[in-house]
Amino acid sequence: MPMKTLRVDLKERGYDILIAAGLLDRAGEELKKVCPGADRVFVVTDDHVQPLYYNRVKASMKRVGLQYSVHVLPAGERAKSAAHLADLWEAMMEFGLTRTDAVVALGGGVVGDLAGFAAATVLRGVDYVQIPTTLLAQVDSSVGGKVAIDLAAGKNLAGAFWQPKLVLMDPETLNTLSDAVFSDGMGEVIKYGCIANKGLFNFLLAHPSRREVMEHIEYILTLCCDLKREVVVEDERDTGRRMLLNFGHTLGHAYELAGNYETWTHGQAVAAGMVAAARIGVNMGVTPAKGVVEFLTRLCEAFGLPTTIDCAMADYAAAIGRDKKGSGEDISFILLDTLGAAHAHKMSREALLKEIEAL
Amino acid sequence: MPMKTLRVDLKERGYDILIAAGLLDRAGEELKKVCPGADRVFVVTDDHVQPLYYNRVKASMKRVGLQYSVHVLPAGERAKSAAHLADLWEAMMEFGLTRTDAVVALGGGVVGDLAGFAAATVLRGVDYVQIPTTLLAQVDSSVGGKVAIDLAAGKNLAGAFWQPKLVLMDPETLNTLSDAVFSDGMGEVIKYGCIANKGLFNFLLAHPSRREVMEHIEYILTLCCDLKREVVVEDERDTGRRMLLNFGHTLGHAYELAGNYETWTHGQAVAAGMVAAARIGVNMGVTPAKGVVEFLTRLCEAFGLPTTIDCAMADYAAAIGRDKKGSGEDISFILLDTLGAAHAHKMSREALLKEIEAL
Repeated sequence: MPMKTLRVDLKERGYDILIAAGLLDRAGEELKKVCPGADRVFVVTDDHVQPLYYNRVKASMKRVGLQYSVHVLPAGERAKSAAHLADLWEAMMEFGLTRTDAVVALGGGVVGDLAGFAAATVLRGVDYVQIPTTLLAQVDSSVGGKVAIDLAAGKNLAGAFWQPKLVLMDPETLNTLSDAVFSDGMGEVIKYGCIANKGLFNFLLAHPSRREVMEHIEYILTLCCDLKREVVVEDERDTGRRMLLNFGHTLGHAYELAGNYETWTHGQAVAAGMVAAARIGVNMGVTPAKGVVEFLTRLCEAFGLPTTIDCAMADYAAAIGRDKKGSGEDISFILLDTLGAAHAHKMSREALLKEIEAL
Repeated sequence: MPMKTLRVDLKERGYDILIAAGLLDRAGEELKKVCPGADRVFVVTDDHVQPLYYNRVKASMKRVGLQYSVHVLPAGERAKSAAHLADLWEAMMEFGLTRTDAVVALGGGVVGDLAGFAAATVLRGVDYVQIPTTLLAQVDSSVGGKVAIDLAAGKNLAGAFWQPKLVLMDPETLNTLSDAVFSDGMGEVIKYGCIANKGLFNFLLAHPSRREVMEHIEYILTLCCDLKREVVVEDERDTGRRMLLNFGHTLGHAYELAGNYETWTHGQAVAAGMVAAARIGVNMGVTPAKGVVEFLTRLCEAFGLPTTIDCAMADYAAAIGRDKKGSGEDISFILLDTLGAAHAHKMSREALLKEIEAL
C-alpha cells in the first residue's frame, strides 16, 4: 500500500502520522505495532461514523487478536461535554481497561477531542490512536495532542495536552462527507496556506473545488499535517509559535458563540474570522492592503465558506474576554504579514475590540 | 519565621515544599513569588476547613493585591466525583480564571486531589498551590502531582500527573484534627518508615503517641516529604520506584472497597494492608520472620490503627483486578525486605490471591 509517513518528533512521546487510502483495514495491525502491550482496545465513535467504518476497524482488530469494545456517541458538538466524559471513564473501567491498553478515536474532531481527553485522564493516562474521518480532524484536531471538552462558557475550556501514539488517516473516508462538512475542513486547509505556505494557498486558488482537492488529497493532507507537525514539535504546550494556528480563531470563536455553536460550523466561523483578521491587519498597517483580503475572500467563497458573519459587539467581547490565548489582560492576536506568513501580536482586549468595531 | 524548605527537583516543573508554623498567614505572599503572573486565585476548600483557616489565607492574598474566590466543597471523599469536578470547571470560568492565574487547594487529600485535577485540566492546565491541612495530605497526597477523582469502579481512576507550583505546610493546622483523622495520616508516616527509613520507624516506636509526634512534627514532616520527594523525582510518572509508595495499598484498597469507602479511612485500610503485606512477605520467604510484623503491629496499635480487617475474597479479587498498578495480567506487589527497605514483586493476580487466602 503506498503510504505517506510523517514523524511528529516530540522529545517524550513522538508518533507517526500515516496517510493512505484503505488504511482503515489495517488499523488493528498498525495499533499493535505502536502499543505492543495492549490487549484491549476501547473504541470511541459516533452514530454517523459507526455504521460507515467501525466494522472495518473491528475486523482488523480481530485479526490481530485484540479484544475490543465500542462506545457510540451521538454525533455533534454536544457530545463534547463533562457528562459524556464521565460516561466514557465509567465505560472504560467497566470494560476492564488497564494502563497498558489503548483507546481509539474513530471519527471527527468531537470524537477525537473527547476520546483523547478520556484517554489522557483515565488511569492518569493511557495510549490512544486517532483515526480521523473528517477533513477538519485530519488536517487539524487529530495532530498535536490538544484534547478537550466544552464548558458552558465556551469550547475546549477543560482538557489536556496528550499526544496520540499514532494518527491513521484514510482519505477515502472523506468521500462520505457532506459538502458542508467537507467545507468545514477547508477552512483550516486555507488557514495553513495563509499562515505558513503560500504555495499551498496558490495551489488551492488553482484547484478551487472539492473534486480537484480530492484528486490531490494525499498531497494536501501531507502538506497540512507537515505544517501542523512542525509547529507542534516546536511548541508542544502552545505557549509560542503554536499560537499562529489560531489565525482566524479569535473572531471565529465569537461567531461560533453568537450562533450558539449551532448556526456556524467551526470552519465557517474560522473562514469569516480569517477574513476579518486580514482586514484588521490591513487597517493596522501590518497586512498588505492589496491582494491578501481579495485572494482569501475568493478562496473561501470557492469552497462555500462565509467571508463575513454578523456578530454583536457583546459576543465579540465575551469571546475575547474568555479567550484561552489571553495572558492576564493582554491577548495574542494573529496577524498576516503576507500570504504565507503570520505573527502573534500582543494587544489589549480593548484595542482589539476597537479594531473590530472599525471594520 | 524558621522554615524548612525542600526542593522537588523535577526536570520541567520543580517546586518547593515549605514547612513552618504560621505559614497560612503568608500564603498570598508565597504564592505571588511562584506565580508572579497571577492576578486571580481560585481557592478550593471544604466546609470543615473553610471556617477554620480560609480567612487567614484570604487576608494574606488581599495584602498582596490578589483577587480571589472561594469554592467550598462538602467535606468527605464523595466530593471527589466527576460531578464536583465539572462544577469546579464551570465556577473557575465564571470567576474569569486565565492561563496565568492560579488555583489553591486548602484542605485535606480530597480537596487537593480534586482541585489539583481541575487545575491540571481547566484551560489545559493552570498553576496550583497545595496548602494541605491534614497529616495525610501533608505527608502524602500534596506532594508528587498525582491528582484524581473517584469513579464507580474505584478510587483515583480518572486523573493526571500535574505538579503544584508550591506546597505550603503549616503544622499548626494539625491541632484541629480529630484523633481519627490524625491517625489516618499516621498510617502513611509508618509506611515511610517501613519502606525507606528504619530510623523513622524506630523514632516512632520511641514516641508512640500523637502528643510526642506533634512535639517533633516538623522533623517528621520533613523526613516524610523528603522521602516522597526523592521517589517522585526519580519516577515522576509512577512506572518504577514510585510503586514502593503503594506498600500496604493493594490490600488497603480491598478494605476500602469492602467498607464502601465509609467503614475505614485510607490510613486504617493501609495500616491493615501493611500488616497483611508484611505477613505475606514472611510467608513468601522475603520478609524476615522475626520482628517486622510484630513491630509494625505494635506501631499501628499505638496510633489506634487496625492491624487486621475482615474482607471477603470477592472484594480482594475486585480490588486487585482493577488495581492501577496492574500491567496486563501481572501485578506489582510491594514486599518488605526488612524494616526500612522494600521492593516491587511481580506476581500474577491469582498467586497474590492464594497468598491472601493462606493468611
